[in-house]
Amino acid sequence: MSNDAKERIESFRQQMKQYHIDLYVIPNSDFHNSEYIGEYFKAIKYLTGFTGSAATVVITQKTAYLWTDGRYFIQAAKQLSGSGITLMRAGEEGVPKVKEFIKDFLKEGGCIGFDGRTLDFKTGETYKKIAKENGALLFDGKDLVDSIWKDRPKMPREPFFILEDRYSGKSTKEKLKAVREAMQKTGADTHILASLTDIAWILNVRGRDISHVPVVISYLVITKEDCFWFVQKEIITKEQNVYFEENGITVCPYEEIYSYIESLGEASVLYQPDLLNYRIASRLPGHTQKITKKNPSERLKAVKNPVEISNTILAHIKDGVAFTKFMYWLKTRIGKETVTEFLAGEYLEKMRREQEHFLENSFDTICAYGQNAAMMHYQAAREDNLVLQPTGFLLVDSGGHYLEGTTDITRTIALGALTGQMKKHFTAVLRANLQLSSAKFLYGCSGQNLDILARGPLWDLGLDYKCGTGHGVGHLLNVHEGPNSFRWKKREEEEEAVLEEGMITTDEPGVYLEGEYGIRIENELLCQKAEKNEYGQFMQFETITYAPIDLDAVNVNELTDREKKLLNSYHKKVYQVLSAYLTDEENDWLKEYTRTI
Amino acid sequence: MSNDAKERIESFRQQMKQYHIDLYVIPNSDFHNSEYIGEYFKAIKYLTGFTGSAATVVITQKTAYLWTDGRYFIQAAKQLSGSGITLMRAGEEGVPKVKEFIKDFLKEGGCIGFDGRTLDFKTGETYKKIAKENGALLFDGKDLVDSIWKDRPKMPREPFFILEDRYSGKSTKEKLKAVREAMQKTGADTHILASLTDIAWILNVRGRDISHVPVVISYLVITKEDCFWFVQKEIITKEQNVYFEENGITVCPYEEIYSYIESLGEASVLYQPDLLNYRIASRLPGHTQKITKKNPSERLKAVKNPVEISNTILAHIKDGVAFTKFMYWLKTRIGKETVTEFLAGEYLEKMRREQEHFLENSFDTICAYGQNAAMMHYQAAREDNLVLQPTGFLLVDSGGHYLEGTTDITRTIALGALTGQMKKHFTAVLRANLQLSSAKFLYGCSGQNLDILARGPLWDLGLDYKCGTGHGVGHLLNVHEGPNSFRWKKREEEEEAVLEEGMITTDEPGVYLEGEYGIRIENELLCQKAEKNEYGQFMQFETITYAPIDLDAVNVNELTDREKKLLNSYHKKVYQVLSAYLTDEENDWLKEYTRTI
Repeated sequence: MSNDAKERIESFRQQMKQYHIDLYVIPNSDFHNSEYIGEYFKAIKYLTGFTGSAATVVITQKTAYLWTDGRYFIQAAKQLSGSGITLMRAGEEGVPKVKEFIKDFLKEGGCIGFDGRTLDFKTGETYKKIAKENGALLFDGKDLVDSIWKDRPKMPREPFFILEDRYSGKSTKEKLKAVREAMQKTGADTHILASLTDIAWILNVRGRDISHVPVVISYLVITKEDCFWFVQKEIITKEQNVYFEENGITVCPYEEIYSYIESLGEASVLYQPDLLNYRIASRLPGHTQKITKKNPSERLKAVKNPVEISNTILAHIKDGVAFTKFMYWLKTRIGKETVTEFLAGEYLEKMRREQEHFLENSFDTICAYGQNAAMMHYQAAREDNLVLQPTGFLLVDSGGHYLEGTTDITRTIALGALTGQMKKHFTAVLRANLQLSSAKFLYGCSGQNLDILARGPLWDLGLDYKCGTGHGVGHLLNVHEGPNSFRWKKREEEEEAVLEEGMITTDEPGVYLEGEYGIRIENELLCQKAEKNEYGQFMQFETITYAPIDLDAVNVNELTDREKKLLNSYHKKVYQVLSAYLTDEENDWLKEYTRTI
Repeated sequence: MSNDAKERIESFRQQMKQYHIDLYVIPNSDFHNSEYIGEYFKAIKYLTGFTGSAATVVITQKTAYLWTDGRYFIQAAKQLSGSGITLMRAGEEGVPKVKEFIKDFLKEGGCIGFDGRTLDFKTGETYKKIAKENGALLFDGKDLVDSIWKDRPKMPREPFFILEDRYSGKSTKEKLKAVREAMQKTGADTHILASLTDIAWILNVRGRDISHVPVVISYLVITKEDCFWFVQKEIITKEQNVYFEENGITVCPYEEIYSYIESLGEASVLYQPDLLNYRIASRLPGHTQKITKKNPSERLKAVKNPVEISNTILAHIKDGVAFTKFMYWLKTRIGKETVTEFLAGEYLEKMRREQEHFLENSFDTICAYGQNAAMMHYQAAREDNLVLQPTGFLLVDSGGHYLEGTTDITRTIALGALTGQMKKHFTAVLRANLQLSSAKFLYGCSGQNLDILARGPLWDLGLDYKCGTGHGVGHLLNVHEGPNSFRWKKREEEEEAVLEEGMITTDEPGVYLEGEYGIRIENELLCQKAEKNEYGQFMQFETITYAPIDLDAVNVNELTDREKKLLNSYHKKVYQVLSAYLTDEENDWLKEYTRTI
């Protein structure tokens, strides 16, 4: 790949020269600032060979840089090796941010370029300001990658379906009403959305335009009276058209969002600057009033309704059955027949596919053996992956989309003998996971207040994991969803979300030792109310992921009595919930692996 | 007191009428927004009888209100009883903030009044804005309390001393240099300070104008070249004048700060809007550039230098000796002779006075027996206090100023039989204290990240304490000092301070059951560096308070092995550090009370 990268970047530089651009920014993004993107949008993979989800590439005539975060440092170093591209480890001491780099590089009379559709407005504005301050020009009207990418995949244009109320728990009419109420509170009469998950949630549509995130590529404009859906119209069936008509939604061609924006009259326009692309937001007429706030649907969809919650628990039971069948298969096969990382991942997917209403994996399965697991987002390839040996750890991070909801689970499985350090670290990660899941706290806490419960047992050992402890989970949407999360670091200009009843957040502490192994234990936590008294409203979590945590890797003597009780009661619940769906052999095995310690 | 209050408020209303003021605001403040204030400034105590430190009074022609925080709810309810003054429990659900109340009350054509010297600029500006929005007038030029307060104490004007470098660790010249460097970074050429602790720290002066806070009432102006100290000049000795001359400090009359401000030319003026009084800040000429930021000295003085640290540890040893002598005396006397809350507090002060370089208590001792301890800031009066019985808890929160530094310690002492619930709660508070003090964390954490370590064991029981877990401690200055603290709630517009090496913060979780008892265990924690590795710089605390935690109140079986180890190693250290200064009898007792459990 590294020679490909060199050639492609060289061709790209020719394009830059033609347009007199000194520095071109390519984010790993579509026109909707999606976390996962369709193949059409994977310009960074095409240009550099890096396949991680978080990346920004900056190309100049002589140099090329790729920024990514801690999850991908090891993987990026490997994939960029020999490409001549400098890896920028975002967040590490002394590593400039992209904007700092640009500010430093851009000279008077120079020019910075990017495709205005691929950058969110906030970032685009930052670059515009830097260009202005440095006396440089801005070029945002053209996708330069397109000119050199000969075999570029097609723009996604897949069929979609309407999610019935018995799964969504709330009709589109109700959701539009809630959004309009929120708009009114901000004084807005017009609301523009590019965020695909928000649009899918509001319209109760689910599609296939992006793998792992069942959304439909489109824009949405909501006004007091009207609702315009800008979408590739050819994918809509007659029946679906009736649904949209009934809900007061006017379907418009995808590309017409730009002319719609430019023709806006005296409107107060609400949009989220980091979720609307630069080209749209920068073309809003000067006479419109701009109200820049979070999309109201972000919080609305993060607080799951009772129908979503009970369905999501069903999805987790199915997912737990699939995972437990896989784990049984793996633990009883290993050392007897040849299993590779890739085949193990395939077997797990097979188990999920056997579950009713399974749609697809909610993200690419991470099935990482030994040192591969130290890369947080390693992906095994059929042609290039490890054979599992009856020793050490296999880390499996996976999840499924079911009509009932979305799951995300990680288990680290002992395949055989473990070193003392491995068990010590596994036990610390387990303690971290249990401490967070058993937290009781006053209403008003955010994930920032709670993060140390998970991180503490690792910090005590002088260890850390270079990512958040957990993220919100969408309902048959993006497996990574805001605003709720567990993280200790303040995020720039972002207030940490208060943990609300009905929010679902993952709890996934880990240990990652480069060149050695990786351990992660991930459950999903449903936030619930506990008692209310003179001190306030107490909150707690219910763990809704059901699969055994490998007791072969636990140092029981390093657990407190409280932690033992927590683990035993969790395992008891796992057995209760899953056993009806397992074979006798699987049940015997599960009984042993959920035993009281 | 309640009849006094009624009469005085009625006279006050006559004054308000004379000036056509509909609503007058009286904060519990001097002209320097000090936390502790001289008797001259205690208008709220004079008018209402309430003696707590946190209060704002609002008086209208027909009503009167007093806002205070959770620490004082019980005390205020008692002291305001029968006064006709409504107690506003700040922070409780449905209780408006002062500004919200004013916004609601103030009518078009009305008038709001306050003494512009007693409000910080930020608050004054807020009221000015409300007045403007409501179409009302603002009257800020007169202290209306003065007109009715016949026997008002005199303005404090006490002698002071220069703190030698062997105690301060940093000369005034060095401190002025550091402040000027910080000023330069903000683009300021002039810096105005009213904060008495900041001024005392910069000038290395310590005084007696305010009990418990050894500062000198004054203002300070620092420019690139000059330094003007506005102070009641008559208190300065000839020798001291030489010191100021040598350090390039010009002494000016206290009241001249106002004419100085008004005569400022083209200056860029740095000031902290919540620490400069409204009258000064609002009189800054229009042509001056205002740079509103924190006083640089806040952070500079919070990070203790090595001389301050080693001295502070000495102060804590002396304080521990005094407290342990007191605790031995109390535990061996109780049930045998009559001891009251007040006499116990006096005995403790006597023990402190016997220590070398003791100056005064760092705050009014809280010596609260039984249900009195449920009031977080209860104060026993000689004429009105409880006789200690050989049962239940005595809570003692106290501290001293020594030339070497300032201390703050709380112990809750079992005087005899305890109920099961008392022991359970004491043990939970102990676990809370130990969990926080033993935290290891990555550099970058603030108290907000760590607070749950202390609060968790209480939240688990459905309990909470209505205050922060801990505060910074000044060095022979205010025992409550920012910016460091342990608290979980975000503060309005205030970023939580990162915990830096050299910061000292108290760790004081508690349980307060109205009408029953109060428990608090308070140690001071010195923040230090632990190892640095690929994950970053780890930090930890050293506990620098030395006194036994009453083992008679501990349910040993409710502690984890880790917690037992922590307590044992703390007690071992206490014995090691103190035993050389105790009598044989005291040592025998201390040995028993610091035994391994």
